[in-house]
Amino acid sequence: MIVIGVDPGTAITGYGVISGERMSPPRLIECGVIRTRSRDPLPQRLEEIYSGIVGLISRHRPEALAIEDVFYARNVRTTIVLGHARGVILLAASQSRLDIAEYPPAAIKKAVVGTGAASKEQVQFMVARLLRLKTAPQPADAADGVAAALTYVMTASVPAIRREAEHMALRQ
Amino acid sequence: MIVIGVDPGTAITGYGVISGERMSPPRLIECGVIRTRSRDPLPQRLEEIYSGIVGLISRHRPEALAIEDVFYARNVRTTIVLGHARGVILLAASQSRLDIAEYPPAAIKKAVVGTGAASKEQVQFMVARLLRLKTAPQPADAADGVAAALTYVMTASVPAIRREAEHMALRQ
Repeated sequence: MIVIGVDPGTAITGYGVISGERMSPPRLIECGVIRTRSRDPLPQRLEEIYSGIVGLISRHRPEALAIEDVFYARNVRTTIVLGHARGVILLAASQSRLDIAEYPPAAIKKAVVGTGAASKEQVQFMVARLLRLKTAPQPADAADGVAAALTYVMTASVPAIRREAEHMALRQ
Repeated sequence: MIVIGVDPGTAITGYGVISGERMSPPRLIECGVIRTRSRDPLPQRLEEIYSGIVGLISRHRPEALAIEDVFYARNVRTTIVLGHARGVILLAASQSRLDIAEYPPAAIKKAVVGTGAASKEQVQFMVARLLRLKTAPQPADAADGVAAALTYVMTASVPAIRREAEHMALRQ
């Protein structure tokens, strides 16, 4: 199972592509950031983010896209512009018929570190550890994208096991 | 000059396509709404809005897209979701290399009615009058899309004349 995780942003969108098999530890395939220039008009920046995600999907053919839920920033304007970026990312995922999972930042921290109140450094440390990397992905936005993908892989297997157990219970 | 005006919304996106020649009154080509179902997931609804706008652009080959600026709704969640819808509309316009104009709701009311505090009914009345229609476009969201397009046609010509005057002044 290949999953793309995305940490959306108008200036920097971080992403991580990982593969997760049921019985073996997850593996990092690629991570990085899509950068746009603040002096360019918003529609052009949205086009660059959209093309970047479409390119990743066509290169890696993932099954799912995991994305950070809307962050209620102190600045309403920033949050609304972030909504525009998320819109084109969700569009790209929907057009490719990916399974889409949205997680609040605290859920990602909880899945990766074990506590929803984890610091950025703790997330980076655990991302590196879970993927057996020598150093954490850089910049932090890329690590956040990887963390979203890890959350999908780590939490997706739990309901699957639960569903199986329920299925067996129904049979009896 | 053909212009698409859009009043973005996650449930109902209103649009109007008009043609405006410098010397003759603007003419309505088409108007309507793109409706999405609230029970469908947001990525699917965004895909429907995007496809709807792409379809309009390929049918009418406009030069410009005029869109209502983000409305700071009382409800932050609603405004953020609206940002997602605007994102995919701006993406469609940018991919087709349209000139994109964003207007605050008050600027549209001012251009069409003459006052930024105009009521919805006044906007509908003036839209019908300016386009010499027997009745206002229905529903109101369609009329709001038409009003955005009218704003582009009516205000685009003013700076053009001004630019010409400035250009002449520079020459002298």
